[in-house]
Amino acid sequence: MKNFVFYNNTKILFGKGKIESITTEIPEDAKVLMIYGGGSIKENGVYDQVIDALGDIEFYEFSGIEPNPTYEKCMKALEIVEDNDIDFLLAVGGGSVVDATKFIAAAYYFQGTDPWDILAHSEEVFEALPIGVVLTLPATGSEMNGNAVITRAEYKQKLSFSSPEVLPQFSVLDPRVIESLPARQIGNGVVDAFIHVIEQYLTYPVDAKIQDRIAEGVLLTLIEEGPKVLKDPTNYDACANFMWSATMALNGIISSGVPEDWTTHMIGHEITALHGVDHARTLAIVLPGVMNIMRESKKLKLIQYAQRVWGIENKDDNTTIDLAITKTVEFFESLGLPTRLREYKIPMTTIDEIVERMEERGDVNIGENKLVGIDEIRKILTDRY
Amino acid sequence: MKNFVFYNNTKILFGKGKIESITTEIPEDAKVLMIYGGGSIKENGVYDQVIDALGDIEFYEFSGIEPNPTYEKCMKALEIVEDNDIDFLLAVGGGSVVDATKFIAAAYYFQGTDPWDILAHSEEVFEALPIGVVLTLPATGSEMNGNAVITRAEYKQKLSFSSPEVLPQFSVLDPRVIESLPARQIGNGVVDAFIHVIEQYLTYPVDAKIQDRIAEGVLLTLIEEGPKVLKDPTNYDACANFMWSATMALNGIISSGVPEDWTTHMIGHEITALHGVDHARTLAIVLPGVMNIMRESKKLKLIQYAQRVWGIENKDDNTTIDLAITKTVEFFESLGLPTRLREYKIPMTTIDEIVERMEERGDVNIGENKLVGIDEIRKILTDRY
Repeated sequence: MKNFVFYNNTKILFGKGKIESITTEIPEDAKVLMIYGGGSIKENGVYDQVIDALGDIEFYEFSGIEPNPTYEKCMKALEIVEDNDIDFLLAVGGGSVVDATKFIAAAYYFQGTDPWDILAHSEEVFEALPIGVVLTLPATGSEMNGNAVITRAEYKQKLSFSSPEVLPQFSVLDPRVIESLPARQIGNGVVDAFIHVIEQYLTYPVDAKIQDRIAEGVLLTLIEEGPKVLKDPTNYDACANFMWSATMALNGIISSGVPEDWTTHMIGHEITALHGVDHARTLAIVLPGVMNIMRESKKLKLIQYAQRVWGIENKDDNTTIDLAITKTVEFFESLGLPTRLREYKIPMTTIDEIVERMEERGDVNIGENKLVGIDEIRKILTDRY
Repeated sequence: MKNFVFYNNTKILFGKGKIESITTEIPEDAKVLMIYGGGSIKENGVYDQVIDALGDIEFYEFSGIEPNPTYEKCMKALEIVEDNDIDFLLAVGGGSVVDATKFIAAAYYFQGTDPWDILAHSEEVFEALPIGVVLTLPATGSEMNGNAVITRAEYKQKLSFSSPEVLPQFSVLDPRVIESLPARQIGNGVVDAFIHVIEQYLTYPVDAKIQDRIAEGVLLTLIEEGPKVLKDPTNYDACANFMWSATMALNGIISSGVPEDWTTHMIGHEITALHGVDHARTLAIVLPGVMNIMRESKKLKLIQYAQRVWGIENKDDNTTIDLAITKTVEFFESLGLPTRLREYKIPMTTIDEIVERMEERGDVNIGENKLVGIDEIRKILTDRY
């Protein structure tokens, strides 16, 4: 096991009826900016529950955060924060809304010229506005970590930052929010959580037995519960298991003391930046290629994954790995996510474009062993055309 | 899954050489009381590492915390805290030292007449001194939770309290501290952690799939790694897995959203209070009796435990449960813990005495279904004589 530091101070309020607990979690004298997306919370009742719970607390609203939230939109929210002396941000939405809220919280205290430097030049975040979350879509795990991914539309760039300063103070997870989600978002959420686990698991063994077993436990749960949620989003227990899986997938527990990869995410972000494909769908495209092309350096963990997650036994190594990849692809497709670039009508020329962009930005020699170079990125994408 | 609140803000600093990081974790201007036990830290080098790391920070020392730390000793430490304007407590030791430190931290701000009321009358803890931990013995999980167990010697009472106010600010976990531990403490530690998991797992199913799998993952890891550590405590990876297992066993992750039992602990505490038997050994005595006597109400989880943890398949229910109990007993005994009351030369009359004490204090109708009454406590202890 590698040395590690684990710290996560987000309070999780999980279960039926938990939205009302924001009443006691937000300071009475706070000036709140409630941040949300396209307005689905007004249709599913979450908006009304939040307004009820806010009661006498003074609040403003900022709506319209996009999937793949943009720097441009966040900067508009920041104006409202500054103009109204806002001192508490309440994100009501999925990962995009939470990520945008984190960037706004950090940008507020940014001392340099342009808060974009937090993303583009990894400028450290020393302070941020306090954040609360009412999660409406389990997927990204953003409700219990300090990570955010923001897109700058004018540059077609999608970049991430991470800071303990933007860990939400609290996150409300009521699995009933899943009832009103479209099937596409449920499928995306299951795959997103699944691949978060994979990026922290499918590397090389360091004899970290608990971390491996927790990772495998989350994967198995998503495999069992994902299809149930998709079939019947009113199945409360399945929704609860899915929701807690997505949070546990990226709250720092699984990654403590083990190597991480994140190749699939880095390549996936490029597909979203260039063609606007849903984040989870880009991961579903790329991951099988990473498994296939990196099968030598990931061999031991790929075999462990095949055995413990898919129950594949008594085959030679290559067949075991092939079967694990096939099972993974079938699982993603069963959740409604096509896994080939061509299925998204992406031209073959995009492969070169992605390779060039990543080379230009220095995003090469990535992965747990720094073995994913230009050639490997090209092979992975070609494998998945 | 049941509704739950999860909150744990302890920063974990895990790995080789991590003791030196207390330099940056304790405020420079703090006045520290370093609290420890019988002095083994002076033999194994931990004391010197801590003193080095404290550097110019002003500190006092309080030694002599006993296994099963007493109220009486804690009150002496409290005098030193008060007399010297101490504002930070550094526990250097195992669970007993950490528990004592938590009680001292809470007692300092206690507004009533006698801080014992925090334990005896569940008086709420509203504030506590900040706590840091350098763990020297993996077992209790106290390094990452808000629980403490304190004994009042004059009353022969061993009681617990719990408060988020006494969550350590940080805990240093360097697995190399295990190298110098006596075999008895290693065996005890593995069993203690194992039974912590069991108390949060072996109840009735609530379809909490991740919690179950994490619990099973910790149990499997302790079964695999415990004997390795006992055989060779210089096996770093085995020690690291054991140490992180003990912490994960009781940091709130496993218990989130599931019923808990704690019958084994409640009965075990009585055996320690009356006969001074090591905490873990009392648990090793009692647990198999709880499994046996409560086999009907725990049937579904006992069978799941038998299958997933011990690989017992294709037997009828009662045989499956019997085999799981036998495997559990054999595991404890292989670690050097006798599992029968008579092996500790405890007289048969102790059974009546425990039953009377628990009845008198109202500690009856305990367990996840409140089904463990007077008769059951007597049967459990008789079963384990």
